[in-house]
Amino acid sequence: MKKARAGSWQGYWTTKIGWAEAGKILVRGYRAEELIKNVSFAEAAYLVIRGELPTRAQAQALDAVLRSGLDQAFISSAVPPARFAASAAPEAPAAAIAAGVIAFGSVTGSPRECAEMLVSAHQTLARDKVSPAEVARRTVARYAKDKRRIPGLGHPVHKRIEPRAAALRAIALGLGVWGERAQLFDAIAREATRRFNHPLPANLAGTVAAVLLEIGFDPLEMVGLGVLSYLPALIAHTTEEIREGHPLRIIPPELGARYAGPAERPLPASHAKRRAGRA
Amino acid sequence: MKKARAGSWQGYWTTKIGWAEAGKILVRGYRAEELIKNVSFAEAAYLVIRGELPTRAQAQALDAVLRSGLDQAFISSAVPPARFAASAAPEAPAAAIAAGVIAFGSVTGSPRECAEMLVSAHQTLARDKVSPAEVARRTVARYAKDKRRIPGLGHPVHKRIEPRAAALRAIALGLGVWGERAQLFDAIAREATRRFNHPLPANLAGTVAAVLLEIGFDPLEMVGLGVLSYLPALIAHTTEEIREGHPLRIIPPELGARYAGPAERPLPASHAKRRAGRA
Amino acid sequence: MKKARAGSWQGYWTTKIGWAEAGKILVRGYRAEELIKNVSFAEAAYLVIRGELPTRAQAQALDAVLRSGLDQAFISSAVPPARFAASAAPEAPAAAIAAGVIAFGSVTGSPRECAEMLVSAHQTLARDKVSPAEVARRTVARYAKDKRRIPGLGHPVHKRIEPRAAALRAIALGLGVWGERAQLFDAIAREATRRFNHPLPANLAGTVAAVLLEIGFDPLEMVGLGVLSYLPALIAHTTEEIREGHPLRIIPPELGARYAGPAERPLPASHAKRRAGRA
Amino acid sequence: MKKARAGSWQGYWTTKIGWAEAGKILVRGYRAEELIKNVSFAEAAYLVIRGELPTRAQAQALDAVLRSGLDQAFISSAVPPARFAASAAPEAPAAAIAAGVIAFGSVTGSPRECAEMLVSAHQTLARDKVSPAEVARRTVARYAKDKRRIPGLGHPVHKRIEPRAAALRAIALGLGVWGERAQLFDAIAREATRRFNHPLPANLAGTVAAVLLEIGFDPLEMVGLGVLSYLPALIAHTTEEIREGHPLRIIPPELGARYAGPAERPLPASHAKRRAGRA
Repeated sequence: MKKARAGSWQGYWTTKIGWAEAGKILVRGYRAEELIKNVSFAEAAYLVIRGELPTRAQAQALDAVLRSGLDQAFISSAVPPARFAASAAPEAPAAAIAAGVIAFGSVTGSPRECAEMLVSAHQTLARDKVSPAEVARRTVARYAKDKRRIPGLGHPVHKRIEPRAAALRAIALGLGVWGERAQLFDAIAREATRRFNHPLPANLAGTVAAVLLEIGFDPLEMVGLGVLSYLPALIAHTTEEIREGHPLRIIPPELGARYAGPAERPLPASHAKRRAGRA
Repeated sequence: MKKARAGSWQGYWTTKIGWAEAGKILVRGYRAEELIKNVSFAEAAYLVIRGELPTRAQAQALDAVLRSGLDQAFISSAVPPARFAASAAPEAPAAAIAAGVIAFGSVTGSPRECAEMLVSAHQTLARDKVSPAEVARRTVARYAKDKRRIPGLGHPVHKRIEPRAAALRAIALGLGVWGERAQLFDAIAREATRRFNHPLPANLAGTVAAVLLEIGFDPLEMVGLGVLSYLPALIAHTTEEIREGHPLRIIPPELGARYAGPAERPLPASHAKRRAGRA
Repeated sequence: MKKARAGSWQGYWTTKIGWAEAGKILVRGYRAEELIKNVSFAEAAYLVIRGELPTRAQAQALDAVLRSGLDQAFISSAVPPARFAASAAPEAPAAAIAAGVIAFGSVTGSPRECAEMLVSAHQTLARDKVSPAEVARRTVARYAKDKRRIPGLGHPVHKRIEPRAAALRAIALGLGVWGERAQLFDAIAREATRRFNHPLPANLAGTVAAVLLEIGFDPLEMVGLGVLSYLPALIAHTTEEIREGHPLRIIPPELGARYAGPAERPLPASHAKRRAGRA
Repeated sequence: MKKARAGSWQGYWTTKIGWAEAGKILVRGYRAEELIKNVSFAEAAYLVIRGELPTRAQAQALDAVLRSGLDQAFISSAVPPARFAASAAPEAPAAAIAAGVIAFGSVTGSPRECAEMLVSAHQTLARDKVSPAEVARRTVARYAKDKRRIPGLGHPVHKRIEPRAAALRAIALGLGVWGERAQLFDAIAREATRRFNHPLPANLAGTVAAVLLEIGFDPLEMVGLGVLSYLPALIAHTTEEIREGHPLRIIPPELGARYAGPAERPLPASHAKRRAGRA
C-alpha cells in the first residue's frame, strides 16, 4: 500500500473505478448511459470490478455464478443473522442485510480460500512440472497433515452431491471455461475422496472459486461476488421476516439453548463491602 | 406479524422461499439445478424475492435496474464507509462491504421512500378520480408545506440531468414497462420543476423506484435491490482499497476536519479530589 | 441539518467532541491524559457524549445503567446474529460484534422508543396541567387504540418481574435520580396493568430510558448507550463461539426450520426454450 | 471447535455465560440483580467476559483501559464510516455505530495483534531463558526482516508521545499491574527506537494490550474491549452527525477525490451489436 506524500493530501482518495461530475459519469472510461443501454448486469459487474469488459463466455459464466447462490433457507450462516436483525430492527432493512453479509467469512460462504488453494496448486503445477494428480496428492496430504478442512469440498447437508455446484460446473464446461485450475479442483476432489474413503463432493463455494479463477477474477474479489450471489436470498429473507416473522426472535431451550456455566452462587462478601464503602 | 403458538416452537422458522435437504434444493418450488441451467440472474433474483418467475420484459427491466448503479466513485455515501473499513480491517472484506451496505438509508441510496410516495399518489389517483397533474400538484404541495425534500428528485452533483436515471427510463419506455405510477413520477418531477422554478431532475433512486413498482416489487424490497445494484461498486472499491489504498485512513484538517468545541480548560478541582478519595 | 456553504468545503467535518494533534488530545476541552487519570469510565462516557462532566449521582446512575445489561444468553435478539457471524467469520471478531449491534432496533433492545414516549407524556403533564395518573391514562389509551405495544413494558420471558429492571430502579431511587419522568413511567406501568388486567412489568429498556432521561440524556443517545450496556455480553458470546462453538451454524428442521412454499414444480416450458435461443 | 453429536441437536446452543428464565437471570452463576446492586461496570464487564470477578486492582485497571479511548475526532478509522452511515441512514443509529465497529481491524484500533506479539515474546522469554532485552532484539529483528510494522508502536499523528497511552501506563504502574509482559512491551519499544533511530512511541492499542494481558484477558477478547473503549466516541459522533451533520455526505475533489482510471472511451462496437441481437 502506498502512503500519501508527506505534506500533501491531494489525491488521497484516488480511484481507477469511476468518476462523476455534473451530468457525466465515467465507469472505467465508459459513459454510464452507454453501459446501461448496451451491456448486461453481468457485463457491467465484470467491468466495474475487473476494469475491462468480459468476453461473451466470461459474461455468461459470471451470470451463472451469480445465479447459483439462490437460497437454501436456514442451511446458511448468513440468513439467520439477517433475520434476527430484521426482527429486532425492521426500520433498517439494509442494515439487516448487512448483518448477513458480515457472515461471509473464511469458514463458509466465501470462495476465497478455495481459490487461494487453487492458485497455489496451479503455481506448483507450472513450477515443478508435475502432473495434476501429483499436485492434488500433495495438496490433500498437506491439509490432512495439518488436520485442516479442504476448502471447497464437503457440505454438512449435501453429503453426496451439491446440486448447485454440479449445475454450475456443467454450464462452465459447456461454455469452455472449465480450464486448468478448475480441472485441478476436480483432481483435488477425486484425491480427497480416495484418501478419506468417502465422498467429499465439490461444494458451491469451491465450484464458484474454480469458475471465477478461470474467467479472470482474483481470490480477494470473490468474497464480494459470493455475497452478491446470495443477496437475492438475503433480500427475500429480510423482507419475509419483516412481513411475516416474529417481532422478538430468541433461541429458547426448546430450540437448543442450554446453560453450562456455574450453578447459582452468592457474591463474595468482599464485594458488598467494597461497594458500601465506595458509594 | 404472527406469534408462535404458546408452548410450541415447531415451525418457528417457517419460510416460503427455499428449502434444502441432502442433495436437493427447492427455490420457490423449482429445483435449484433447473433454475441455474435455464434462467438468468435477473430472472432468478426476481423469483427468489417475488416468488414467481418474471415475464421477459420484467426480467429485462430488472437487469437494467441492477446494472444502473455502476459506480460514482466518492459521490456516494456508501463507498467511503466501505473504504475506511477496508483500510482498517483488510482481513474482512465482506464486513467492509457490509459497512457500505449500512449506508443505504432513507436520505440517500434507497428507492423505498420514492416508491412509497408513488404508491400513495397512485392510490389518490384511483380513489379521487383526479388527473395525474392534479395528484402531482397535491403531492409537491404537501412536501413543500412540510419543507421536506421530494424523494427521487434532485442530486447534489447532477443538477440538470442524472445520466443513469435517463438511460434507465429510456430502457423502461422501450420495454413498455413505464406505466401509470412511473408516469406519475414524471408528472411530479415536472410539477416540482415548475413550482420551485429550477430543474429538479429525476435521480437514480427515483427512477429505480418507478421501474421496480411497475414490474411488481413493493417498496420494502427495493431497499435490498438498491444495495444489489451498487454491490459491484462496493466490491471494486473495497478491493482497490485493500490493494492500493492507505492503511491508516483518517480525515485530516487539510481535508475538512475542524474542531468547534470548547477551548482547552482545566478539570474542575472537585474531580481530582473525588478520584483521590476513591482509589 | 446544515449545508456546507456553496463553493467551500472548509470545515465540512466540524465537530465539538474532540481534537487531536501531535502529542495533544482535547476531549470537550479537557486534556485526554487528565481525564484518564482523574475520571471514571462512566464520567468519561458522559462527558464524551453530553459535552460536560456529570455530577456524582449522574455518574453513579450511568454506571448502574451500563452494568444492567449483563447477559441473558439467547433471550436476546443481538446475541444470535453475533454468534452466527462469529461462527462463519472467526477472523473478524469486531465485525461479528457489529452484526449483533445492528439488532438494537425499535422492536427490542433500544430504550429510545420508551424515552420518546416519556418525553411526550412529560410535555403533556407540563402543558395541560393534569395529574400524572391522567397523563398515564391518556398514554395507555392511545397505544391501546392504535393496537401498539407500549414501549418499555412487558417481556416475553419475565412475565411478572424483570430482575435487572427492578435492581436498576432501586439504585436510581437510592441516588435520588428517579424524578418526574421516571415516575410517569411508573404511572404508565400501573395504568397498563390495570387496563389490560395482567401484570406488564417494566422491562430493562424502559427502566434504562427513565434513568437516562433523568440524568440528562436525550432519546437518540440512548440507542448507543443500550448497545454499550450489552457490549460485554456480545464480546463474551463472540469469543465463546470462536473458541467453543460450531463452525458451520445453521438452523435445522429439528430446531424449528420449516418450508411452507410451493411444492416441487417443473419450470415453465417457455424458460427452457428462451434460454436455448439466447445462449 | 466441537461438533454436535450426529443425530442430536440438544444443547446446540450451549453457553457458560448466562441464563434467563421467568424472573431469574444468572450471569456466570451470580444473580443479575445482585451484580447490578453490588459491582461496578468494569467489574461486571470483567465477570461477563472472563467468567470470574476481578480483584480490585484488575477492576481499576480495566476501568482505566475503558476510559482511555475517549475521542480523537477524525484521527480514527472508525469515526468516519459511522458518520457517513449516520448521514445516509439517520433512522438507524445502532447500525451506524456498527459501521464504525467493523473498522476495528488488524491495521488499527485493535490491541489484538500487539497482544499476540507479547504472548509469543513472553513464551520465548520463559522457554529460552534469555533476557527481556534479547527477546526484544529478536522480536524487532523479525519484524524488520519481514518489513512489517511492529504492532503497538508508532502513530501517524502522535510522533513523539501518545498522551492517552502514557497516562494509561502511569495508572497501570500505580496499580502494580505493569508486569512482565508489559515490561517486555517497554523493551520492544526501546529496541525499536534504537534500531530505527527515531522515536516509535507506544500507541494506545499497544498499551491497552499490555495492560489487558496483565489483568488476565487473552488477545481475542481484546478486539471487543478496544471497541468498547471507543463506543462513547462512536455514540457522540453518530448523534452529532444526525443532529448537526450533512445529509448527503460525499468526498468531493476539493477534499481529495481524484480519478486515475482510463480516459473516456467508446464502447467496443461488438457490444452494441450483441445487445441488439439479444433483446
